[in-house]
Amino acid sequence: MSAEFDLIARIRARAGGRADVVLGIGDDAAVLQPPPGRQLVVCTDTLNAGVHFPDDTAPADIGWKALAVNLSDLAAMGAVPAWCTLSLSLPDADPARADALLDGVLELATLHGVVLVGGDTTRGPLSLCVTAIGHVAPGHALRRDGAGAGDDLWVSGTLGDAAAALRGWSQGDAVPAALRARLDRPTPRVALGAALSGLASAAIDVSDGLLADLGHVLEASGIGAEVDVDALPASAALPDACPGLELRRALQASGGDDYELCFTAPPALREAVQAAAQGVGTMVTRIGRMVADRGLQCRTAGGEQWESARAGYEHFAG
Amino acid sequence: MSAEFDLIARIRARAGGRADVVLGIGDDAAVLQPPPGRQLVVCTDTLNAGVHFPDDTAPADIGWKALAVNLSDLAAMGAVPAWCTLSLSLPDADPARADALLDGVLELATLHGVVLVGGDTTRGPLSLCVTAIGHVAPGHALRRDGAGAGDDLWVSGTLGDAAAALRGWSQGDAVPAALRARLDRPTPRVALGAALSGLASAAIDVSDGLLADLGHVLEASGIGAEVDVDALPASAALPDACPGLELRRALQASGGDDYELCFTAPPALREAVQAAAQGVGTMVTRIGRMVADRGLQCRTAGGEQWESARAGYEHFAG
Repeated sequence: MSAEFDLIARIRARAGGRADVVLGIGDDAAVLQPPPGRQLVVCTDTLNAGVHFPDDTAPADIGWKALAVNLSDLAAMGAVPAWCTLSLSLPDADPARADALLDGVLELATLHGVVLVGGDTTRGPLSLCVTAIGHVAPGHALRRDGAGAGDDLWVSGTLGDAAAALRGWSQGDAVPAALRARLDRPTPRVALGAALSGLASAAIDVSDGLLADLGHVLEASGIGAEVDVDALPASAALPDACPGLELRRALQASGGDDYELCFTAPPALREAVQAAAQGVGTMVTRIGRMVADRGLQCRTAGGEQWESARAGYEHFAG
Repeated sequence: MSAEFDLIARIRARAGGRADVVLGIGDDAAVLQPPPGRQLVVCTDTLNAGVHFPDDTAPADIGWKALAVNLSDLAAMGAVPAWCTLSLSLPDADPARADALLDGVLELATLHGVVLVGGDTTRGPLSLCVTAIGHVAPGHALRRDGAGAGDDLWVSGTLGDAAAALRGWSQGDAVPAALRARLDRPTPRVALGAALSGLASAAIDVSDGLLADLGHVLEASGIGAEVDVDALPASAALPDACPGLELRRALQASGGDDYELCFTAPPALREAVQAAAQGVGTMVTRIGRMVADRGLQCRTAGGEQWESARAGYEHFAG
């Protein structure tokens, strides 16, 4: 038995199960029983070494993050995650690394009752491609194109920690563990997303930076937004690591890798949104409002116009 | 607008649609309406540059093959393909290559009515990770573990062409176009797989080599097989390119990359299998039978025992 089939056998033994997995890892494909009366929600995201995580990231954290960024996409649709696949490219047959990558994937999967149902392993530079599949009530998916003028603009959790960690790491600074954990093990807002289904008018997850991702909502919805940059929620750890106000604003507005949910809802639902968020134990903060005029205006608490020095992380930017 | 979003916009414009795609490319995830009363069938496979195709392979052929190997997995389950996602890692922002890769994916997708519903683009060594989703009648998926002693052993199409092409290419020989096409643009046996659902007792697609893949069926089904190596179907092009009988046998039995279906069925269904195959215009050949004793015996037409020089392609084989 080759190393590849050995690895697949180990993955299979650890993948877990649930009643709707008719046939999991070990055949040409998985067979799944979709929940009746629900629509499927499907996303795919890849993490590549040298691009998506610092090169000293622990393999278990890489595995966690590869699934987390996908569960975050499902959360941004208001979907309940169910199953995932993992395509794993490995530069060698080191079983310890493969197992550690899998540790991270399965730790997060277990937290959300998600079952790994398939995938493949190939030789190549380290890369993890995850496809996540969930479900949502028909018509209740949170889309980018549903925001209306006058809606409140909200964001979950706190912003800027992951970007601060990445900045510190790339400068060779000592990075506080609390910040580094936000970069390495983002928390997909799965329960919040599901709780917002039926309340939020639009949603997106913050992966490339708040303003860049909000821009996709504006474009899809055909409207504009006003953002109060001093209302952006920050962790307790952020001011210590980044004492400068301007840098902190920039990291929060444009840093990326937060995997928080940015969403809109009518002001009439303000209390319902707060109650839904409280019900799942996730903080949400109002950070602005949607306006009919296209474009994105940022203002400080003092009312001054503010422009981010960076427009968010873009692949291939050059 | 960055090159990445530009590329996504181009992909979105070309992805096509079908009635059950509620929301396609352009949001955090796709929303799909599963067909009522069917089970989902899901698989993922990645093609990496330097591993899964010769480095002179045309981008459109790489795109075709990335989807083909996944549709082949669905075919081996007897599933009807419906949707796919594509995660594309590109070393640079060259739009011509990206478009050509997409040309190949979409050409094959269109042939099978499959819609590209999502994915992502990242920087990295050239790699294509495809997830394909199809559906099957409950309980009718073709599994590896259903083969019974006494069943006929069948294979579709012809074997050995792709391996002969790869061998010729790696030796620097001129490779006949007919063989090279089998390597670059494999034909997933989608219609045959669906037609065999309800007839075949077990199935697998031939990707790593007939004997290696048959071995998975034997292991899952807990039985053995006798294979007549001189019954393995060959294209007209193969003997010309490989005059030596032993080499030809080895390429056919163990070469890999054929993407034919290897399947089993009770002898009582022999005519039904032939009729089903004829109905979809795909040749099928009986190449042996399943036996109660575990193990895999190969014999020549003369009745001699035959051993393959190679055990099939294995990743990480060292």
